[in-house]
Amino acid sequence: MAIHEECGVFGVYDPAGDCARTAYYGLYALQHRGQEACGIAAINDRELSFHKDVGLVGEVFHEGILDELNGTMAVGHVRYSTTGGVRRENAQPLTLNYVKGTLALAHNGNLPHADELRTRFEYQGAIFQTTSDSELIAYAIAQARLRCPSVEEALQKALSGLRGAWSLIVMSPRKLVATRDPWGFRPLCMGRRGEAVMFASESCALDAVGARFERELGPGEIVAVEDGQVRVVQKPVSRGNLCIFEYIYFARSDSIICGQSIHEARRRAGRFLAREYPVEADVTVGVPDSGLDAALGYAEASGIPYGVGLVKNRYIGRTFITPGQDHREQAVRIKLGALRSCVEGKRVVLVDDSIVRGTTSRQIVSLLREAGAKEVHLRSSAPPFIAPCYFGTDIPNKDELIACRYSVEGIRAQTGADSLGFLSLDALKHIIPDAACGFCDGCFTGKYPLAL
Amino acid sequence: MAIHEECGVFGVYDPAGDCARTAYYGLYALQHRGQEACGIAAINDRELSFHKDVGLVGEVFHEGILDELNGTMAVGHVRYSTTGGVRRENAQPLTLNYVKGTLALAHNGNLPHADELRTRFEYQGAIFQTTSDSELIAYAIAQARLRCPSVEEALQKALSGLRGAWSLIVMSPRKLVATRDPWGFRPLCMGRRGEAVMFASESCALDAVGARFERELGPGEIVAVEDGQVRVVQKPVSRGNLCIFEYIYFARSDSIICGQSIHEARRRAGRFLAREYPVEADVTVGVPDSGLDAALGYAEASGIPYGVGLVKNRYIGRTFITPGQDHREQAVRIKLGALRSCVEGKRVVLVDDSIVRGTTSRQIVSLLREAGAKEVHLRSSAPPFIAPCYFGTDIPNKDELIACRYSVEGIRAQTGADSLGFLSLDALKHIIPDAACGFCDGCFTGKYPLAL
Amino acid sequence: MAIHEECGVFGVYDPAGDCARTAYYGLYALQHRGQEACGIAAINDRELSFHKDVGLVGEVFHEGILDELNGTMAVGHVRYSTTGGVRRENAQPLTLNYVKGTLALAHNGNLPHADELRTRFEYQGAIFQTTSDSELIAYAIAQARLRCPSVEEALQKALSGLRGAWSLIVMSPRKLVATRDPWGFRPLCMGRRGEAVMFASESCALDAVGARFERELGPGEIVAVEDGQVRVVQKPVSRGNLCIFEYIYFARSDSIICGQSIHEARRRAGRFLAREYPVEADVTVGVPDSGLDAALGYAEASGIPYGVGLVKNRYIGRTFITPGQDHREQAVRIKLGALRSCVEGKRVVLVDDSIVRGTTSRQIVSLLREAGAKEVHLRSSAPPFIAPCYFGTDIPNKDELIACRYSVEGIRAQTGADSLGFLSLDALKHIIPDAACGFCDGCFTGKYPLAL
Amino acid sequence: MAIHEECGVFGVYDPAGDCARTAYYGLYALQHRGQEACGIAAINDRELSFHKDVGLVGEVFHEGILDELNGTMAVGHVRYSTTGGVRRENAQPLTLNYVKGTLALAHNGNLPHADELRTRFEYQGAIFQTTSDSELIAYAIAQARLRCPSVEEALQKALSGLRGAWSLIVMSPRKLVATRDPWGFRPLCMGRRGEAVMFASESCALDAVGARFERELGPGEIVAVEDGQVRVVQKPVSRGNLCIFEYIYFARSDSIICGQSIHEARRRAGRFLAREYPVEADVTVGVPDSGLDAALGYAEASGIPYGVGLVKNRYIGRTFITPGQDHREQAVRIKLGALRSCVEGKRVVLVDDSIVRGTTSRQIVSLLREAGAKEVHLRSSAPPFIAPCYFGTDIPNKDELIACRYSVEGIRAQTGADSLGFLSLDALKHIIPDAACGFCDGCFTGKYPLAL
Repeated sequence: MAIHEECGVFGVYDPAGDCARTAYYGLYALQHRGQEACGIAAINDRELSFHKDVGLVGEVFHEGILDELNGTMAVGHVRYSTTGGVRRENAQPLTLNYVKGTLALAHNGNLPHADELRTRFEYQGAIFQTTSDSELIAYAIAQARLRCPSVEEALQKALSGLRGAWSLIVMSPRKLVATRDPWGFRPLCMGRRGEAVMFASESCALDAVGARFERELGPGEIVAVEDGQVRVVQKPVSRGNLCIFEYIYFARSDSIICGQSIHEARRRAGRFLAREYPVEADVTVGVPDSGLDAALGYAEASGIPYGVGLVKNRYIGRTFITPGQDHREQAVRIKLGALRSCVEGKRVVLVDDSIVRGTTSRQIVSLLREAGAKEVHLRSSAPPFIAPCYFGTDIPNKDELIACRYSVEGIRAQTGADSLGFLSLDALKHIIPDAACGFCDGCFTGKYPLAL
Repeated sequence: MAIHEECGVFGVYDPAGDCARTAYYGLYALQHRGQEACGIAAINDRELSFHKDVGLVGEVFHEGILDELNGTMAVGHVRYSTTGGVRRENAQPLTLNYVKGTLALAHNGNLPHADELRTRFEYQGAIFQTTSDSELIAYAIAQARLRCPSVEEALQKALSGLRGAWSLIVMSPRKLVATRDPWGFRPLCMGRRGEAVMFASESCALDAVGARFERELGPGEIVAVEDGQVRVVQKPVSRGNLCIFEYIYFARSDSIICGQSIHEARRRAGRFLAREYPVEADVTVGVPDSGLDAALGYAEASGIPYGVGLVKNRYIGRTFITPGQDHREQAVRIKLGALRSCVEGKRVVLVDDSIVRGTTSRQIVSLLREAGAKEVHLRSSAPPFIAPCYFGTDIPNKDELIACRYSVEGIRAQTGADSLGFLSLDALKHIIPDAACGFCDGCFTGKYPLAL
Repeated sequence: MAIHEECGVFGVYDPAGDCARTAYYGLYALQHRGQEACGIAAINDRELSFHKDVGLVGEVFHEGILDELNGTMAVGHVRYSTTGGVRRENAQPLTLNYVKGTLALAHNGNLPHADELRTRFEYQGAIFQTTSDSELIAYAIAQARLRCPSVEEALQKALSGLRGAWSLIVMSPRKLVATRDPWGFRPLCMGRRGEAVMFASESCALDAVGARFERELGPGEIVAVEDGQVRVVQKPVSRGNLCIFEYIYFARSDSIICGQSIHEARRRAGRFLAREYPVEADVTVGVPDSGLDAALGYAEASGIPYGVGLVKNRYIGRTFITPGQDHREQAVRIKLGALRSCVEGKRVVLVDDSIVRGTTSRQIVSLLREAGAKEVHLRSSAPPFIAPCYFGTDIPNKDELIACRYSVEGIRAQTGADSLGFLSLDALKHIIPDAACGFCDGCFTGKYPLAL
Repeated sequence: MAIHEECGVFGVYDPAGDCARTAYYGLYALQHRGQEACGIAAINDRELSFHKDVGLVGEVFHEGILDELNGTMAVGHVRYSTTGGVRRENAQPLTLNYVKGTLALAHNGNLPHADELRTRFEYQGAIFQTTSDSELIAYAIAQARLRCPSVEEALQKALSGLRGAWSLIVMSPRKLVATRDPWGFRPLCMGRRGEAVMFASESCALDAVGARFERELGPGEIVAVEDGQVRVVQKPVSRGNLCIFEYIYFARSDSIICGQSIHEARRRAGRFLAREYPVEADVTVGVPDSGLDAALGYAEASGIPYGVGLVKNRYIGRTFITPGQDHREQAVRIKLGALRSCVEGKRVVLVDDSIVRGTTSRQIVSLLREAGAKEVHLRSSAPPFIAPCYFGTDIPNKDELIACRYSVEGIRAQTGADSLGFLSLDALKHIIPDAACGFCDGCFTGKYPLAL
């Protein structure tokens, strides 16, 4: 599997027009899901136009472009910055002509069998101009459309032959169709604002554009919007297995997924962590931004006061020049500042969302010690990463994962912390207590809901 | 007085070279003090070179530019984005040739009598190519230099004739000279890293580059660095009157000013606020980012649990397209997301750092109500703004200041909050208990330490 | 037929490497064939990389990009700026993955039956991401490759089923294959520099990179280069019908096509014109740049002295802001300056390469009269345009062609000239006297070498 | 003398407004006088605004900027690209505040005593933010204005104390003032279009904007425009000494300077050259673009037919990547193509406008030989450069001037030509037979009209 990616998608039908602008604001709210590239495709009087490029939403779009796109339907996409080749060609939505006219696709997810599938298409004479899985899905739809009377049925047929993760929005000149894979790996929800209908990876994007959250799409569900009419083309097929890392890290904390608040899940993780790994300490400090919620939970459950011990520099962007080889260790100082008044002479519980390679943790522990912390007790609100993700998340190779190379004690030693605790797998399952769905925790267990 | 500005300055002498790069990281840490424009000037083997432009530090500089600047001394500047004309010409450091060669100046502050002073110079035949006060200071230095044997003495003489606010770093081919105005309005500190000597508006910039904080410069103090030797040219002349709004809003919370932690001052403000304006409520919510510290203090003192009720979008940048006239109210939704799980059915204490025009407060109150808050009790950790600032802060005109137009009850009604409390002037004085200096609170009192 | 285009292609195999740079210089020499977009794809140790964008060669490429591309093989492309949508997606070379790995294609030409062909592929489930014919050719190759043992044989098979115009360079990880359509519409030649082998639309590109012109490819010929060995895969199949407008306008005057100098052909056209449309006059003036050669020929044959009566502004680029509606007539004054000293009080023969819409001619005639010309006798070194081109040239619609709407006398009246003469079709045939090929003059006759 | 520069200036007063746009087109026509940087300052209802940057007119300005500038008066400037530091700070017009408000200055010329003058100002306490002489002139005006009742009188007074070359346009909120230095080194002319009044370095800029050429300003003349009234503030003071190199190279061939056509002067130079250095040859070839006029004159006088032997690549821009050290010789091939059909087997007279370092000449001679020329006889329509210019032209140092290092025979050998002839100084004087002015030929003689 060549490329993993975490992305965000947004789709809007609005008879009042200005859909590109609505998509722009929706993508702004989903920017945390992908900072490499972005794009918007819009339908104006049945004509497709689009704009996409490498960069943040605020960099790629300006007023003139939005005015030109305009439209009564639009789909948007933000794409994750994987290390290495950032290719403009891979920016989405994918736009294409096929037997029935034009299509635009925005896709969040991953097909673990992409290579196999690509080869199969190639043996039919297909050509591929990107390295994204979306192009494969597009081919599958185009082929299915030859035998199906509508785009939504073609989509249904095409996806029925695929295995993997996708939250997908497809736009034809007359229809907006949204769907999730039958395993329900990636989130997708639906909302309304007056006569407008919208789909988004996370509910925070609906809030941002002033839409009312209506519901989440179920695993395998297909919903089509045409002339303002919403029609369920295919009902949910399973309870699903949502990526549990959405709760730990990916999603924005004001989003609601599977009926559960992301912020509450993180806080709950912190509370469990306090129970599983208690310690005598003076202050609980979270690593901003993603460790703050769990730190608050840890503080609440442990009684160890919540403190602001680290401040994040809000201005580090894509163009930040990393300090050279000699000063690599210094990078963390530019990204994070330690609050001496908070940690000096104190025993600190340091809560982070997860520990991947361990290098950042080591630097933060060291930063706190320099600021006078007497002890630093590291807590991870996720269990150790031990396995790859085949469903849309860019987990590093096993040889880069610190938990594949060291025991918990070994990791502690590597990070220089005085003690270390990872949330248990058992507790993990309870951070989303009444979820309407099951979960995939393959990256922590090596067990996946889908045979590979 | 035409232009107010809040800025950040950084200066470095390092015999090991690479000073432009050090300044770059220092400016990154000071970026919160100015996002309009930035620049770095460096001395390489007695030759001055520079680069400056409109934009963030990460946008204006790239590796090639830093390599070209290089140098064993550098000064850097970040400039605040005032509304209206963002002129590239006003970017600093100001670089110039004068009777004794080249100079670079980086200036944070404001001269209230600038117009008068400018006219005086113009009547001597001077020309002005920018609208910044720095050019006035430069003229004063250039004239003083005709009668003074060194740049630091010229600086001393020139400044002795000026009244206003300045934290200033001046670089000649051989010397780096740093100084604060005799009233001590704006902060400036000094640090060391090996043989390197540095000056910065805030200590967080020293931390970012791995320098050890040594001390703050006193009001009126002039310090010169030459060949690594640090010499006090003029001793502090007063206890000073530091801008109290640095503690409330400007400075980064991990900085230390007048020996006091910014974060602790804000937390203390929150604690006083809880005592002065108690309320029965279920959760304390801060407006991110600048209201969070005070909210924590409020929660601590009131016993009302601290909650994360608002999430800030981290990607809103300079190029953000504001929603059109019809949707102006919507802008806040894109910038802030409300956490329904935190506030629904609850009585919320909403803590912000200050209330200026009142429009943002009204939108946030409304956002929380829509997310289900039963009551919203607004608390400002600063007293009401009632007067302009003449010393480097961009306080709006009186007719825009809500506290100049309404009573506290009127402001409450305007914002739609259930109750409202402003930190008292009396409490304000106590948020920095053992400060080594006095304070200017002119914007809250109309009384200034310097006759105008 | 949706899109006409005139383009330039360049291909190079050089074991010494640095092929992207060679292609860059080659494209510079072909820039007159297309100013909309350009691109280079290179093979480095069997790996394909590429860069392409909207803009001129000098805008799209910089040193760093060329260094990254590098390579021992490269293909490049420049694309013509048709009015309307300049889409980045249409920039070439087209790069793709297919059953046997990667391919890059650079294409100059047009398939008149593209829509039909596209539909046929779509009915096999194909998707199209660009609007260029090159994608069709790529599909045809990919399909043929399934049944052919090599890329060059697949190319042969694929092209055998196509009708239209193409000068095409295809690059696989190991081979560079160049070919022309069997009708020979578009030029393509081959050269060598040491061990390097190169292909280019025009010989001027070989001169630019210091390569020795070897020969032109014949109609239908396919040549493959592998490990430095040049092999003729398919021999020329006909005498061919080269686009005669290459001689009149497209090609650079220092190029040699079909063994004939472009400059000489233009000069000869001018000489014939002098014989066919003699006039009593004082000076012969060419419209720069493309009318100068013919003007020189007219002057030589008529004995009316050659004069420089018009100067072209060399700086008008893609970003030129056209004068508004009220001043449209003024545009010509910015592009061309009249030399009063040359034309004042004189009878002027004004020679242009062709007359398309007539608007520019009218403006130039008027410009010369204002500069004092007593008479202006307009001569076109091409016959009147009366029919569309289906083979790669962007001739406007018939309703825009002045010769489809007016008689010669009517055109004269429209342009305001005192007399008007178009080169005759008969003379046109003789401007390339000993050409090794036949010609397509469909735009002047409506008769094409290929049934449509 | 630190910096030489050749520039172009344009000024316009037009009660109908849109002056920035008029200046834009005027600068386009003057672009050949400077390609490094450009700028426009405009007066809108007494308010000054401006835009300037490094780059060509077409790169620096876009529609939105021109709309913002707008105005009823404007001055524009194009600046020459000297090798080395292209500093944005040096872009003009220089805009400033002084005792009486705002001023904008656009300056073409050079002050040979700039250093001395700068020192004098510095000893009065002045600071300099650019390295351009314009800033010196601005100071002089600002000081004079203290004692003069109007800007034009201040200008008169200020300039009376200066020695050197300037064609200068100064704009105050109410007036546009144009002037030339008393020695008349640089050209400046005036035109009208309806109620609009314009000034330009060359008449071609007046033609471009549809203005009627009225007259040239005389040496030392000062003309002020206020509310549409044109007033001569100071009459011409001498016959003047126009830079003769304007005729040879700088000016555009459709311009008229001192009442004489540039094109005719160049053609006349070619004719004299034919008489002074006749040769038996078959074809006369000019080096495009600046050698073409003289080549035509040579052909006319010698009877040796004029031929197009070299074609210039029209797309080489500022961003062209020069071939590396190993291939430096190749650069000429990319810039110029030789027409084999024109020169093969022939004896060629090669006419260029001048020979500076000799390297380009050598490459062109070699290019022609490779294209089959039997003999190449080089002719320069300017005498040998033997001395620096102190008046606004960027003549290289003596050690780079080939004529300072070699005899004519030596230069011939260096360039590889079969024979070589430079226009004589005597003939040079006659290429502008009835000029209304005298000339400065200091670069060819070392004798200047102004003691240094």
